[in-house]
Amino acid sequence: MNSIRDYLAANEARFVDELCAYVRFPSVSAQPNHRADLQACADWLRQHCQAIGLEASLCPTSGHPIVLARTPRSRGRNKPHYVVYGHYDVQPPEPFELWKSAPFEPRIEGRSLYGRGASDNKGQHLAHINAVEAYLRTGTELPCDLTFVIEGEEEVGSRSLAEFLKERRQDLRCEAVVVSDNGMPAPGLPALTYALRGVAALEIKLVGPNRDLHSGIFGGSVDNPAMALCQLLAQMRDRRGRVAVPGFYDDVLPLTSYERKQLARLPFNAKSYARFLGVPQLYGERGHTSWEQRSARPTFEINGLTSGYQGEGSKTIVPSWASAKITVRLVPNQQPARILRLVKKHLEHLCPPTVRAEIKTGHGGQPYLFSPTSPAAQAGLRALKTAFGRDPVLLREGGSIPIVTDFKRILGADTLLLGLALPDDNAHSPNEKFNLDNYAAGMRLGAALWPELAGTAA
Amino acid sequence: MNSIRDYLAANEARFVDELCAYVRFPSVSAQPNHRADLQACADWLRQHCQAIGLEASLCPTSGHPIVLARTPRSRGRNKPHYVVYGHYDVQPPEPFELWKSAPFEPRIEGRSLYGRGASDNKGQHLAHINAVEAYLRTGTELPCDLTFVIEGEEEVGSRSLAEFLKERRQDLRCEAVVVSDNGMPAPGLPALTYALRGVAALEIKLVGPNRDLHSGIFGGSVDNPAMALCQLLAQMRDRRGRVAVPGFYDDVLPLTSYERKQLARLPFNAKSYARFLGVPQLYGERGHTSWEQRSARPTFEINGLTSGYQGEGSKTIVPSWASAKITVRLVPNQQPARILRLVKKHLEHLCPPTVRAEIKTGHGGQPYLFSPTSPAAQAGLRALKTAFGRDPVLLREGGSIPIVTDFKRILGADTLLLGLALPDDNAHSPNEKFNLDNYAAGMRLGAALWPELAGTAA
Repeated sequence: MNSIRDYLAANEARFVDELCAYVRFPSVSAQPNHRADLQACADWLRQHCQAIGLEASLCPTSGHPIVLARTPRSRGRNKPHYVVYGHYDVQPPEPFELWKSAPFEPRIEGRSLYGRGASDNKGQHLAHINAVEAYLRTGTELPCDLTFVIEGEEEVGSRSLAEFLKERRQDLRCEAVVVSDNGMPAPGLPALTYALRGVAALEIKLVGPNRDLHSGIFGGSVDNPAMALCQLLAQMRDRRGRVAVPGFYDDVLPLTSYERKQLARLPFNAKSYARFLGVPQLYGERGHTSWEQRSARPTFEINGLTSGYQGEGSKTIVPSWASAKITVRLVPNQQPARILRLVKKHLEHLCPPTVRAEIKTGHGGQPYLFSPTSPAAQAGLRALKTAFGRDPVLLREGGSIPIVTDFKRILGADTLLLGLALPDDNAHSPNEKFNLDNYAAGMRLGAALWPELAGTAA
Repeated sequence: MNSIRDYLAANEARFVDELCAYVRFPSVSAQPNHRADLQACADWLRQHCQAIGLEASLCPTSGHPIVLARTPRSRGRNKPHYVVYGHYDVQPPEPFELWKSAPFEPRIEGRSLYGRGASDNKGQHLAHINAVEAYLRTGTELPCDLTFVIEGEEEVGSRSLAEFLKERRQDLRCEAVVVSDNGMPAPGLPALTYALRGVAALEIKLVGPNRDLHSGIFGGSVDNPAMALCQLLAQMRDRRGRVAVPGFYDDVLPLTSYERKQLARLPFNAKSYARFLGVPQLYGERGHTSWEQRSARPTFEINGLTSGYQGEGSKTIVPSWASAKITVRLVPNQQPARILRLVKKHLEHLCPPTVRAEIKTGHGGQPYLFSPTSPAAQAGLRALKTAFGRDPVLLREGGSIPIVTDFKRILGADTLLLGLALPDDNAHSPNEKFNLDNYAAGMRLGAALWPELAGTAA
């Protein structure tokens, strides 16, 4: 391992140059005029992978190509196989005027490399590729077979990935997928993300009179759908901040004391968190910490309200209808379909007879849990400690990462989420940056991970 | 009186022709291109009034002119003075395609005269003018001095009327104002409207995080302003359908048993009313009839709700803020300013510490009550009975009529509201019509009213 770490250290300046070259491609997948830039970016990556000794190819899709790069397979030896995922496409850089330097002209200031896509996700997966380069160039045998899958449509919903995984299911069968496309809680504090929340969406519309009514002529003798909606939705959350739908918590897997202890290690300052959000006071389910509330507990969120008159001044009407968009965040082992059924049934049950409820259930996404005490998770934690020189924390992510569900569903594989982004990396915002210490630590992580996973670490 | 009734009957066909001539003017006050039509219409009315023996003039305003027409004053005799109000401007006729005949080409079908403005308000005040013509042409002495004030801006908020009333305060000092610009509950069932509800408007905005937040990353650890708004507004109405604001009902003048008895005489069918409104079931404050609920009881109405995402599909956010537009309908003797204070205070009191409430109070309008047992109201009731041959009912109007408040405020005069419009007259809608039986009854009302008011009726 020493030769690998030496190689990484000795070549750090070149690795930074290569990241700059990679970031220069304006590979904005959401903007059709960048189609050629995405192709050129993918091609650069393919050539780079070939140059360091990987077997690389571009796989066309109905959208942007996927770069597939494999370590050379050694005959006869049956090594464990892992897929490493990343994406070379980036978010749109707009608004340009808020950038301190051009988004596709990388600029280094201190230990930050500024540029669109530097952190999300070019820098993060290039670190893994650099680690493998170190193995290949120093003649160190990799204890695992690896396949890099670097797609070009992550920022537009990974439209072609599921189809690709299905087609290559045989080739991509693996022990697990490794992804560095998320965050760590603070500089120098590495983290393994082992659980994600799921989501389920619905929309409710309460319909009263067949047109907006004059509130003077009719008001008082007919229910107001906006008031009925408020009174209905108000009952969906109780005084303890819990979702007041019967059966809602039935399948929730309780946090273990190990998990709660790990989550309690995460840095948190209520005052600065409230200031960051701009709220006068924090709020959440009683009996849980903020970290638990936002990542390990289910929620019922109103995403939008619409009713009646919304313009300037006032309009004296009883609105004909009122509607709300709702998403429910789910935790393991809640099932989106079952939860949608329960919520719909409860809303219908509580709906007063003076209005008609129209409830449309929408998309759902499974929550995800990868046991943090599993051998692979423990291996990931050890590799993080080696790379960063500090005990990593365990993280749950409050949002969902659809590709993780795809890997599970199509490949049957769990995902090790080893994020390298810092909270202030400005992913999706102007002045995105990637921390060069994290870039280097990411390479050390990529170096340490494979022996840990293969069980051949010293 | 017989000669007057004979005159009215003998000239009915001509009166209908004159109403047709009057309706032909497209006096649409809301549309600038009709300015000359309004002028021509006002001029026609002035000439008509002069032709029948009134002293008439056009009074210019910053908007459309007001037609002022007085009965000739007899020297030395001090008769009671009444103002008769009407308006010659009309609502826009659009959408044209829904009219069965051209809106400004009057058409008679059965006992209905179709045309924009026929009912609202040309036919109604012309009936009063015709009655006065009968007095003047038959040489019958009018027991009252009358001044007709026919404005041209009622449909655009009577923008010049208050100023005009202030300028002419001396000339217009009167016992009361007579207005036929509203409705009766059913064909053949005359009504005196003696009370109006007032109104008070406010807007509440609950502000949470300083931007829309990702509901996955932050949801659960911060309050949702849309939910907070629902839970706050839900508390404004109790299970009995009453406004749950402390002190809200303190000043409400209870309905007398005479009033309740009168309101109970109004025709009402819950099933057909619910069908007309298109609601599955009616709703209202317990212990009160629908007529009472919609005209004699105060309400708290949400006129509009706005929060977060309102487009297609779903957006997984915790919205930064949520707002509601609210109007409160008031009944005698509630004061708009006091009620706004109480509502605002209560909302602030109940607002959770996790969001900031921004409450803007808006316009207010006084409720109005003209005692139905007062001599003038009783005189109006007797005149209605004479004109229609049937015992009139007493009505409260759930909306407000701003000019009534202006007459009270500026002239110190109460208003006798003697509406001649039928519920299906389509005021403000395509195919507006005026019932010719009501036109004739309106003339008989105009004939009978002045002796009743002066106390000289047989």
